Formats: sequence, C-alpha cells, structure tokens
Amino acid sequence: MNYFSSEFKLGILGGGQLGKMLLYNTRKFDINTSVMDASNEAPCKIACNEFTLGDLMDYDAVYNFGKRVDLLTIEIENVNVDALEALEKEGIKVYPASKTLKIIQNKAKQKLFYVDNDIPTASFSRFAYTSEIKEAVNHGGLSLPFVWKSAQFGYDGQGVKIVRTIADLDGLPNVECIAESLVSFKNELAVIVARNISGDIKSYPVVEMEFHPEANQVEYVICPARIDNDVAKKAKAVALKVSEAFNHVGLLAVEMFQTKDDQILVNEVAPRPHNSGHQTIEASYTSQFEQHLRAILNLPLGRTDSKVGGVMVNLVGDESYTGNVVYKNIETIMKMDGVTPHIYGKKQTRPFRKMGHVTIVNEDLNQARRIAEEVKKSIKVISK
Amino acid sequence: MNYFSSEFKLGILGGGQLGKMLLYNTRKFDINTSVMDASNEAPCKIACNEFTLGDLMDYDAVYNFGKRVDLLTIEIENVNVDALEALEKEGIKVYPASKTLKIIQNKAKQKLFYVDNDIPTASFSRFAYTSEIKEAVNHGGLSLPFVWKSAQFGYDGQGVKIVRTIADLDGLPNVECIAESLVSFKNELAVIVARNISGDIKSYPVVEMEFHPEANQVEYVICPARIDNDVAKKAKAVALKVSEAFNHVGLLAVEMFQTKDDQILVNEVAPRPHNSGHQTIEASYTSQFEQHLRAILNLPLGRTDSKVGGVMVNLVGDESYTGNVVYKNIETIMKMDGVTPHIYGKKQTRPFRKMGHVTIVNEDLNQARRIAEEVKKSIKVISK
Repeated sequence: MNYFSSEFKLGILGGGQLGKMLLYNTRKFDINTSVMDASNEAPCKIACNEFTLGDLMDYDAVYNFGKRVDLLTIEIENVNVDALEALEKEGIKVYPASKTLKIIQNKAKQKLFYVDNDIPTASFSRFAYTSEIKEAVNHGGLSLPFVWKSAQFGYDGQGVKIVRTIADLDGLPNVECIAESLVSFKNELAVIVARNISGDIKSYPVVEMEFHPEANQVEYVICPARIDNDVAKKAKAVALKVSEAFNHVGLLAVEMFQTKDDQILVNEVAPRPHNSGHQTIEASYTSQFEQHLRAILNLPLGRTDSKVGGVMVNLVGDESYTGNVVYKNIETIMKMDGVTPHIYGKKQTRPFRKMGHVTIVNEDLNQARRIAEEVKKSIKVISK
Repeated sequence: MNYFSSEFKLGILGGGQLGKMLLYNTRKFDINTSVMDASNEAPCKIACNEFTLGDLMDYDAVYNFGKRVDLLTIEIENVNVDALEALEKEGIKVYPASKTLKIIQNKAKQKLFYVDNDIPTASFSRFAYTSEIKEAVNHGGLSLPFVWKSAQFGYDGQGVKIVRTIADLDGLPNVECIAESLVSFKNELAVIVARNISGDIKSYPVVEMEFHPEANQVEYVICPARIDNDVAKKAKAVALKVSEAFNHVGLLAVEMFQTKDDQILVNEVAPRPHNSGHQTIEASYTSQFEQHLRAILNLPLGRTDSKVGGVMVNLVGDESYTGNVVYKNIETIMKMDGVTPHIYGKKQTRPFRKMGHVTIVNEDLNQARRIAEEVKKSIKVISK
C-alpha cells in the first residue's frame, strides 16, 4: 500500500498529547489521519484530517471508526480490544495487535506473560478480589510489605498502593488485583524497542528515570542512563527479550528496575510512544513518534542513537493550584541553553496533572542535567 | 502579553509549506493560530485553530483578517503591505513590519537599500520599463551580458533572465525592472539572522547552496558551508550588517555570492523561514521555525549552533511528469542513515514544482553529503 497518497487513511484511537506529537510526523510524511477521542477538546482535534467523537471503550464506536480506516493504531492502551479483534478478522491492520493489548491491559495477565516467557520480574500473587488478600496474609500465604496493583487500568499514581500494614488495604477498590513484592532498587530504567511488520528491530539507548526523593514521581528522564556498561547491556537484552516475546508491531517501552544487586526486573510495558522517550524529539536521530510511524507502516526503521545528551523534565501542575493554567517563568527557562518546552494544551491545571514536558539537550549530559534542575526550580504550573 | 494562553491569537498570512512547518511549533507551545490563504487546499488548513479563505494581495481581506488577531506574521512576502501599515497604526503588531516588507517586495528598492546602507551588492541599473533597457544598451549606458530582474514579485526561476544579446529581451514583460551585472561566483552562501523585539540577535552558521551544474537549480544546502573560516566570518559579518540595516523582527535569510576573489555580495533577502534553513529542523539546537516564533513573540532566542552536520535536498517534480504525485523509492531513501523526508502535501506534481525536501544528518558532514547524493539519485517525484 502507498501510504504517501491521499487514498490511505491512518486511524488513531485517542486524541491526547501522545497523539498530538505523533500527528506532527504524519503531517511531515503527508499521511491522511483520522482520530477518535471522547473529548471535543482533545489536543489532536485540530491536527488531524478528520476527528470523530467517541468512547474508546465502546465496542460499536471503536468498530465503526476502525471500519473507515486502513490501519489503526493507539496512543493509549485503554481501548475496546474486542472491537479491535473483530476489525483484524475483517482485514483492518491493527498495530499494536489486539493480542498484545489484551495482555498489557491486565496487569495480572502481563505478569503471568513474563513468567511464561522466562522474563525476570518481581514475584507476585494474583487475586480475583482485593478482599481475598487479607485472608492470604492471615494464613501466611503472603507477607507484608507488598505493592497492591489493580489488574485493570492501573497506571502510575492510580491503582497502585504500597501496603505495609493490613490497615493500608482499607479503602482500596474490591477488584481483580496483584500483590507484588516490594523491590528495593537503585534505578528505574527504560528501553524503547521499535519493531516493524517485517520484523526489523531497533532499540533506543537505556534511559534512567530519576525520582523525586519524597514525592515518588518521575522528575527527570536522562538519556543515556548514567549506569555501568554491563548493566546497560543487561537492560537492553531484557528489553529485546520482552519485545521478542510480544512479537509486537510499533514501539514497546519497557520499564525496568535495576535492583541493589544489579539484577534487571521488568516492571511494565507500553506498546506506544512513551514518556520515557520524549527526549528523542530533540536528542535522537529519529524521534520515537517518527519511529512508531515507520514501524506500523512497515517502513525502514530510523537510527536510534543520540545526536547529543538529552534530559526530560515533566511539567506537572503545582499542588496548590486548580483552575485556568498559567506557565510562570516560561521565558526564564527559554533563556537557558538547549531548552524546549512542550505545552500539551490542557486548559485547566490541578495538583500533579501532566501539563507538558521540557527537553534539555547538550553535548555534555551532566550539563544538561544541571540545566534541567534549573528548569525544574524556575518554572511553575499555576492558575490565575 | 501571555502568549501561552488561549486569549492570544497569532495570525499567519499564507498557508503553504513554510506555514505548515511553523505551525508544528505553535502547537508545541500551544499558541492559538489563525491562517489566511487563497486556497482551500492550503497545507496549513488542518494544522491551525482557524482558517480564513482570502486573497493575500487584497487590502480588505488582509485588513479584516489582521483586525481579528493580536500579532500578524507572514510565510510569504507577497501580501498587501498597505493593509499591514493600516493595521500597525491601529496597534496590531506586525512582524516583519510593513516597512521591511515594502523594501523587500520591490527588487529595485531592495538594491537601493543596500547601496544606501553601504552593503556590498552587484552593481545594477533601475528601469521603469523593460523597453527602456534597449535604449540604454544602444547608448552605451549598459553593457551586455546582464541579469534582468522584474522589480515586483520576482523569485527564483521566475522574473529573472540572463540577457546575453539584445534579442534575449524579446518576450520579457514590459515592467519595472533592474539590470544587474552578471557576478562570476564560486559559491552561493546564506546566513539566517534572528532578531527579537528586544533587539537580541543570533545568527545561524553560514550554509552553502550547491547548484546543479546544468539545471541552474539549488540541489543541496550544506550546513556548515565548506569554505575558509575567513570567508565564513566575512559572510556572517555582512549578514549581520544587513540585519542591522533592516532592523527587522523575526528571521532574515540573507543570500550572498562568494565571488571568484572571495568578495561577499548580497543577492537578496527573505524576512521569514527560508529554504536555506530547513536542515535546522534536524541539525540545529533550535529549528528556524521555532526561532521565528521566539523572535516575533519576543521570547529569548534559542541556540543556533548545530548538533550534527546537515544537508538538505529539495524534492522537485520530475521534468517528464504532470499529474497526481507519487514518491517513487521513498522507502529506499528512508533506509539510509539519518534521512528524513518532508512531504509538503501538494496533490499534483509538475516539472520542477517544489514538492518537499529531504534532510540528511550525520556526525560527519562529508558522509551526509555522500548520502544526500544517493538520496538525489534514488527518489523520483513522478505521477501515476
């Protein structure tokens, strides 16, 4: 199929900031796009050729949308997978495939998949309901502390809780869940692997996700990670093994722990452009967004090495403000060397809401890291 | 004024490929945009917040459009300057200013401006009508050969003719024009200078425009130019002098000749993102499009040095084809190292029509130049 022609139509499920950054690249290649999202204020709305309002979890909405395109991709995992399966049967190309999404959408299934495929991951127990956990602890089948994770629709900061005492279970939803052993780690690492339909594979350098010591939120993504070569090699090998096991098409972002004794344990994956790859826009030969497109369109994959060192800082809403957003001191950070703000276009801020990110590139990674700290100290996402 | 707020509206006159690349960056900064163009198929149409159909040379169309925005910029020089002047008087910010555009729109005025400001340029004579040239030659006031240029609306390949004999004048339109002495040059060079409202100035490295030996068309833009340091310094100094003379806001692309005896002569300027700066998207710390925005919004200017070597190849329609465009062998070029195609989205190709460009980046500029030659040999812009 000739993608570079107006007869081809690429469908994207989800109209958020990841889709928006993907759309810059569809425009660069002049690819005809259609986006579906539940919000009429979705950032993608003005950058696609065609916008459809629809619930991504609704079978009919996804199915009907998919029938009107040649190839379907996602910018968020939480979509109706049954509809995708039906579309695949009818010859619509869906990347990532429904089988990949099915495993990833459910954290219990995802963990079992790692075990089945001999991929190192923290040990865990699976429960049909949170209420069953108490019993398991009482009978000695599970020991404290552990990490409680809801199986469905869990993502960073939601659906996850560290349980140190039985009382910590109070108030958690009574849903399918896992109890995962609490890993004592030195670093959180990530590797983005790209795979096209022909099976060509390329991986980006290992990045380091530096956490705020108190807030337990990713503060900086640093590319490349400041770790030993041996650890980097091991992390890359594990990421490639995960990619091979999924046999996915498109990007797969593999998040991992580097334990105190330098083991690599897979935490979770995302089958799409990912927060840990935003610095690729400025720092890499090929941005993760262009690479995702190259992969799902079965084009040759681009170079994944870096032109310069890159650090990404997430722009989140200040914890004391809710309302119409104002980016205070944005001119101050734009004065700094190699700083590019990416504003996602959300009108309202609230505590810790992801409003954008800032990339800092420099030929010297340590200098980039220092400037990133200045950025973090200067800019404030507040309201009027 | 807070640009990063939905109350601000940036107006762009012209909806072509330059505007389209500018719009990626307005999206990155979440800046509200309104575009006017005469064509309903303008590439910008789907990437702006609001699109207005209108003739850029029509006073009322430009005036009415300008009244609805806070700041007006252009992506093409040929706009109604009287309307811009009226808007400025009513407090609308216009960058580049009407006075800058007035000089640049008319090649005779532009040349006189260089003379008045002691800027080196090829000698010339000005004529109210082409018909007056014959007389000047007959009376010995002008000697052959020379370059005939129409004063108004001339651009590369149109409105320009090398006149070697009096017969070459036949068929030229009888309009205001200049006769410029034919410069014997080693290289065509260009420097893009950025200037913001506060008067901060930054210039990009000198680039080299390599011409096809027979077709007399720019084939490659090479950044940085492969010239002596002294020549590069001289070219940069001349470009900064031109920028100072214009006292412009936004980008100013200064095209120059390096003569056989290493003099620098200014050929012409463009007060906007320019073909000689497309490689900045992939090769520079700050792309020319982001820089233009930073300048007109009076934000701090970004770094203008390069991360890696960059070469740009123009994608023009094959001379034997007219019709619905097909990009033959695009997958072949995407297999090559550091190659990014930019397809402008024009549906129809015709001989020599500018359909897109390809950037090649590499840590080794000579390697980038070699790959660029492979790109040029491989890709064909044809029709079905």
